[in-house]
Amino acid sequence: MKSIYSIKGMQRISRRSKSEGMTIALVPTMGALHEGHLSLIRHAHKISHIAIVSIYVNPAQFGPGEDFSKYPRSLGRDKRLMKKLGVDYLFLPTDKIIYPNDYETFISLEKLSRVLEGKFRPLHFRGVATIVAKLFNIVQPDIAIFGQKDFQQSVIIKKMVKDLNMPVKIVVGPTVREKSGLAISSRNEYFNAEQKQRATVLYDGLMLARRIISEGERDARKIRQAIKRLINKVSGTRIDYVAITDNENLQPLKNLQGKFTISLAVWLDEVRLIDNISVDLKE
Amino acid sequence: MKSIYSIKGMQRISRRSKSEGMTIALVPTMGALHEGHLSLIRHAHKISHIAIVSIYVNPAQFGPGEDFSKYPRSLGRDKRLMKKLGVDYLFLPTDKIIYPNDYETFISLEKLSRVLEGKFRPLHFRGVATIVAKLFNIVQPDIAIFGQKDFQQSVIIKKMVKDLNMPVKIVVGPTVREKSGLAISSRNEYFNAEQKQRATVLYDGLMLARRIISEGERDARKIRQAIKRLINKVSGTRIDYVAITDNENLQPLKNLQGKFTISLAVWLDEVRLIDNISVDLKE
Repeated sequence: MKSIYSIKGMQRISRRSKSEGMTIALVPTMGALHEGHLSLIRHAHKISHIAIVSIYVNPAQFGPGEDFSKYPRSLGRDKRLMKKLGVDYLFLPTDKIIYPNDYETFISLEKLSRVLEGKFRPLHFRGVATIVAKLFNIVQPDIAIFGQKDFQQSVIIKKMVKDLNMPVKIVVGPTVREKSGLAISSRNEYFNAEQKQRATVLYDGLMLARRIISEGERDARKIRQAIKRLINKVSGTRIDYVAITDNENLQPLKNLQGKFTISLAVWLDEVRLIDNISVDLKE
Repeated sequence: MKSIYSIKGMQRISRRSKSEGMTIALVPTMGALHEGHLSLIRHAHKISHIAIVSIYVNPAQFGPGEDFSKYPRSLGRDKRLMKKLGVDYLFLPTDKIIYPNDYETFISLEKLSRVLEGKFRPLHFRGVATIVAKLFNIVQPDIAIFGQKDFQQSVIIKKMVKDLNMPVKIVVGPTVREKSGLAISSRNEYFNAEQKQRATVLYDGLMLARRIISEGERDARKIRQAIKRLINKVSGTRIDYVAITDNENLQPLKNLQGKFTISLAVWLDEVRLIDNISVDLKE
């Protein structure tokens, strides 16, 4: 695995690889790699000649007061894990080359970025869309792979790619969970064992919803209320939202049919967690 | 010359050409081609293997009440001119494929798009940046060529390309003028001969400034006032701005030194005209 620190260097490698007929898959990450990332990287290998991982904790997607400065960083460990998986290139830029002093260009989605997470993190998806577009221009991947755990992020990136006609295929890999059901996340590192135990209530809520739906309930409001009641029983929780939405336009649904996603954001003590499941009633 | 109407078709042609080692130069236009465009197209031919011209009157860069619906269109004539110049591909998309109903992704520059033209046309450069990014993703040019007449546009596109790390080189071709000095523009078609005569006052103002500067004046305010006085003498004129700014950050200058640009926007009867000259005191 070769670490690349400069934009021009990364562009040169990508251009050369593509001119040799190789396909490139990119897995953009913020480091602190866990089994979720690793499953995406394994998939990258399967579907392309060259697997590139980027590690960049993108300040533009953190709001004021969010956990940018304490976000977990573990580069040494990350590198060992990636080498084991046979990653070809690690792109590792600094803030100075990604956002030089006079930086001022941003990509915004007018509707999708205002709902769900966007209500609580107003500039988050502007930061996400912008860094992903930059990484696409730098790495020039044929395929880019994102995790289903960040459901709205994957919807927004697919929409940006479609709207801006970017020549990149977006692949979304499934959420990886601990045995308890807790979605694996870099932010789980903030927890001790007891907190992790309480944090499983997000998944418990989603599973409760799945059961109620399988028993025939189609009223989204009732399902959301059942999830909320369950979560509110656990000490230290505070719900930002529990939503049942269309998979693409993210608009809330009233009566459930076809495919949809149940997503939620819940504070546990001082840490904000998100999770989601997709449901297909036709299956 | 082959006309291409679909995004996928254009991307396929570009990908194939590049895989064969060809370089592509793109000249994005809104049609109504004139000698200014033709000089850019000739240049495209000189510096690349394949010359592609796009014609698309981009609704997103016109404000409410602006001249979108009456903007001159002359596709038959445009095609004849381009064939003569040996253009390889004409990309000719429709509104429906560029901005489908659920379109919502836009690129904004926070500072450069708020000054000069941006003060009078608030969403203009958001529309310009967005369509240019789309065209770059569709045509995938190595080089894109813009006219110096749209000075701020060229500055903003260069900045977007730098900020978003787009792998495209931006070339700016000189303003082409009539014998009278009037900058050639598709909007000159709105004028009769007498109006065209009065419209030369924009260039006269710029030439007056050049003379005053060559005589030693360095006070930007005095130079701007001299231009304004000249323009105000001509009937039917209304000045939006006369500015002397840095070539890159577009900030107004007080005392002139080095390189800078004098730019102005003036209404003549019902038509809004822009023009500019660059000055280098070191030359």
